[in-house]
Amino acid sequence: MTSMLINREDLDFLLFDLVQAETLVTRDRYAEHSADTFRAIIEAAHTLAEEKFAPHNRKADENEPTFDGERVHMIPEVAEAVKAFADGGFMAAPHDEEWGGMQLPITINQACLALFRAANVGSSAYSFLTSANANLIRAFGTESQKQRFLPPMFEGRWFGTMALTEPHAGSSVPDIRTTATPVGDGTYRIKGNKIFISGGDHELGENIVHLVLARLPGAPAGARGISLFLVPKFRVDADGKPGARNDVALAGLIHKMGYRGTTSTMLNFGENDDCIGELIGEENRGLTCMFHMMNEARIGVGMGGTMLAYTAYLHAAEYARTRAQGRPIEAKDPTAPQVPIIEHADVRRMLLIQKSYVEGALGLCFYAARLADDARTAPDAAERADAEQLLALLTPIVKSWPAQFCLEANHLAIQIHGGYGYTREYPVEQFYRDNRLNALHEGTHGIQGIDLLGRKVALEDGAVLALLRRRIAATADSARACGNAELASHADALQAEWDTIAETTTQLRAVTKEDIRRGLANASVYLDMFGHGVIAWIWLQQAVAAHQAQQAGTRSAAFCAGKLAAARWFFNCELPKAGPQHALLRRLDATALDAQADWF
Amino acid sequence: MTSMLINREDLDFLLFDLVQAETLVTRDRYAEHSADTFRAIIEAAHTLAEEKFAPHNRKADENEPTFDGERVHMIPEVAEAVKAFADGGFMAAPHDEEWGGMQLPITINQACLALFRAANVGSSAYSFLTSANANLIRAFGTESQKQRFLPPMFEGRWFGTMALTEPHAGSSVPDIRTTATPVGDGTYRIKGNKIFISGGDHELGENIVHLVLARLPGAPAGARGISLFLVPKFRVDADGKPGARNDVALAGLIHKMGYRGTTSTMLNFGENDDCIGELIGEENRGLTCMFHMMNEARIGVGMGGTMLAYTAYLHAAEYARTRAQGRPIEAKDPTAPQVPIIEHADVRRMLLIQKSYVEGALGLCFYAARLADDARTAPDAAERADAEQLLALLTPIVKSWPAQFCLEANHLAIQIHGGYGYTREYPVEQFYRDNRLNALHEGTHGIQGIDLLGRKVALEDGAVLALLRRRIAATADSARACGNAELASHADALQAEWDTIAETTTQLRAVTKEDIRRGLANASVYLDMFGHGVIAWIWLQQAVAAHQAQQAGTRSAAFCAGKLAAARWFFNCELPKAGPQHALLRRLDATALDAQADWF
Repeated sequence: MTSMLINREDLDFLLFDLVQAETLVTRDRYAEHSADTFRAIIEAAHTLAEEKFAPHNRKADENEPTFDGERVHMIPEVAEAVKAFADGGFMAAPHDEEWGGMQLPITINQACLALFRAANVGSSAYSFLTSANANLIRAFGTESQKQRFLPPMFEGRWFGTMALTEPHAGSSVPDIRTTATPVGDGTYRIKGNKIFISGGDHELGENIVHLVLARLPGAPAGARGISLFLVPKFRVDADGKPGARNDVALAGLIHKMGYRGTTSTMLNFGENDDCIGELIGEENRGLTCMFHMMNEARIGVGMGGTMLAYTAYLHAAEYARTRAQGRPIEAKDPTAPQVPIIEHADVRRMLLIQKSYVEGALGLCFYAARLADDARTAPDAAERADAEQLLALLTPIVKSWPAQFCLEANHLAIQIHGGYGYTREYPVEQFYRDNRLNALHEGTHGIQGIDLLGRKVALEDGAVLALLRRRIAATADSARACGNAELASHADALQAEWDTIAETTTQLRAVTKEDIRRGLANASVYLDMFGHGVIAWIWLQQAVAAHQAQQAGTRSAAFCAGKLAAARWFFNCELPKAGPQHALLRRLDATALDAQADWF
Repeated sequence: MTSMLINREDLDFLLFDLVQAETLVTRDRYAEHSADTFRAIIEAAHTLAEEKFAPHNRKADENEPTFDGERVHMIPEVAEAVKAFADGGFMAAPHDEEWGGMQLPITINQACLALFRAANVGSSAYSFLTSANANLIRAFGTESQKQRFLPPMFEGRWFGTMALTEPHAGSSVPDIRTTATPVGDGTYRIKGNKIFISGGDHELGENIVHLVLARLPGAPAGARGISLFLVPKFRVDADGKPGARNDVALAGLIHKMGYRGTTSTMLNFGENDDCIGELIGEENRGLTCMFHMMNEARIGVGMGGTMLAYTAYLHAAEYARTRAQGRPIEAKDPTAPQVPIIEHADVRRMLLIQKSYVEGALGLCFYAARLADDARTAPDAAERADAEQLLALLTPIVKSWPAQFCLEANHLAIQIHGGYGYTREYPVEQFYRDNRLNALHEGTHGIQGIDLLGRKVALEDGAVLALLRRRIAATADSARACGNAELASHADALQAEWDTIAETTTQLRAVTKEDIRRGLANASVYLDMFGHGVIAWIWLQQAVAAHQAQQAGTRSAAFCAGKLAAARWFFNCELPKAGPQHALLRRLDATALDAQADWF
């Protein structure tokens, strides 16, 4: 039976034909692996996702966690699922063997996680947040911190959170007010209120380790005065044993539109002046530590947005193939049998848009994950640096493009289901609600636009953008080398678009230097436009790979034809949308910038 | 305090400056009214919507109706609200004085209903469905049917539904299978299953009157063999007294993503072969009766989609003016106070998009309502015919444009609220969920596209489209006459766009005659493109009216400046999106049409 989580042929294609994950096994770190072990681990993840995560996805949505003033209650399936995840080795999978990990490449690990995201984004978040937390401890913790905190986290006994946001400081993290006062014994007394802390309280394990941003006494104002602290729910002694309850109180659960299975919490630290934490990383370098982890977290957000739409697309395609309704538009006989709705051009149009969005986005996420692997393990230092920088440039797109366009794909999956799609008897409405979060957390859409246009495209005086364009040119060359007129035409369109993007960028950067408000006023439009350019590039890569697989007969004919059709759609019907965006950006449209508050 | 339902200055502007509702009082039917009575009735509606509908909007969402196998239960506020609505005279408002109505123009009635939709779309639906039902009885019922059914409906004691859809025939209404067999005494035995029947069961009143589409024995196959029946929950005797329970059974409630306050039902008619109904209208003319009501129902859908986004926009603007977060992008001092987020260009951009969508859509809905009034009451027969035809042409846009673009406005209202917008502690997430229905019911988006391109633009051999273009030309002339360079430039852009639309239309119509599948393959794209052209026209009308009000000082300066900015945004940043759509349509892009089922 067809999996509704992912098209495994597509996953294999993206991992091995597109980003050539098997080449990673030449790296020392991954030398124990082979393409076969990669596939076996993915298979195990797929089975676990189908068996332990997917079955309670709707139930967790309909029975969200509750707080009785003392404890958080949730359906028992969540604890079973996260335990099975850890028992299967997935908590530690990408980590060092010395910590019990498999040293799985980030690319393959993300492929595994993608399956859990598609199956149940709410339940899998507890483990993923813990993994992000552990990553940070591994990178910045002292040896003692690593020894005490990592093993129970990798074993799935302890969980972790990231506690950044405060009620008065959402996107403006530097404005946080939580304080950390030295006790004198090397620990700190933490005091402050945090909000929107995912997984901030629950009873899935023995402890919850909060990574809390706070200010030391006399720290400089703003971003340069923020430090990071490890604050466990139950205090941890020098041997790593959890003991007394720390002064971390759940002030309440937040009730969300979707993603309901994940507790979102308001936490009070130090209400009774008795919340003890320990510094991790250097004083006043908390944001640097946090942002070090952000690239990977943002790949995770992109992957989450993508997979929620990917599974919805599979449901829509299946529904369209099996639901009979209406007749071909040219048919005259009202007694003829109804046809599957996939026979209607408009339904195929909606499927093709979804396919071009979700498979394009997934290709981008894997490309980014591969860059993360290359940044860590490529043999050549220059190659590592290139990968690091390219990833930094692409991160705003990875974070934001799926949140914007895969949500649109979710919208279309509902539309294909007609009235049924709007009901909770079908899964697509939940995927849509769940996915709406992704344009908000880990940096809103607007913040990503400012990051891209205000910072990333200017990195190294534009050298990183130039590097991206060289990669794009190489893809275009490989497309022209296929000897296929359509691919050559896509290649020309892609390079023309990137010439245009480069010109628009140069113009906007020049303005930004003079007048940053005017230069960045339409950064969100720039973000969407740039994203379409990136996804077109990913689609040309996929088209080339599909063409080659078609020639070699290594993938099924229908699969290759579908890939080439989705690429065609993206080049013919999506990329041209950038035209009016360039015009808007180049004329420095100030309609919004000049609007006054009392006009609304 | 500012109303969160509507900007009353805008409502006044749209009704009196844009569609000149006060001129309607010269018509015999509306002779008892004046602009003052219109305003007084709207004021009463506003008060009632604020006091009886808005307060339980969230509660109704969180406590959706339940069915215990015998009875439907809902929160008591719903019954109180619908009773207050009827007691206030709003059930009968547009109807004849002879039936206890106010003979309110459709335009003014829609303005009143808009306030209830903004306040609580779920609770107001019960009354609105009843009103649509009563409209149909008034138009097609016998004298006896009108005498027996209309008074209790107008008094708010009986309710009504439209029972079209069956499980195997959603969008394909001609495929329904419900049967009606003559009993011999003039009544019919009804047998069949209906689904998605809004308001199909509840205990808000004494009776529920279902308008049921069914087939008579030996009726022709397809659309020409469908008749319409009045099927009450409690049988109605010759004097109009409700008696024994009819064989209409609630098979279950459907649980929706939004619009939760309105019961959506599966109804079984004649499970025990004892469901009695009476024919309304002629045999086999049921769809004609139903479609006669559809124009107005579709204005209602457009108005619903618009108002859900309008209230969300007001919430977003208020939040943006009061929520402090971050600093101007050029500011360097991290200790400076945070500024209201409306100071950020991207937030103003999102507000301006919302404003241009919701006020543009509301203008269109009122324009359509005014056409409905003119079709009914204009003194000149030719004027009535023109209004009727123009309304028919515009109906697919009125139905679909708000469903598509005002939903996007709802998305942006959440985005402005940041993480809070995703929580159920704020209202904007519910508006978004509620609004998602509107692209599905009363004819999906795809069906509207086929209706527009396959039928409406070809009406009278294109004469109706030509009529629309003359109206547009007249608006452009009035804009040029303002002596304002920007308005003249908008006028030129609008006419150029409509020249392009006309050419695209001619080309597609020619193809459609030869190959209807190819000609209509991208009808949904055509629908969106055409819709932007229509909304641009509405915006130019608003800009002209705002300019005149600005010159005359009849509206506040901020209001006029806001209108002109929203028009500017629509012309500068929205209308150009049509360019790539024309290109796609003209090359008869067949990427979707030619895709195969197994490619997905």
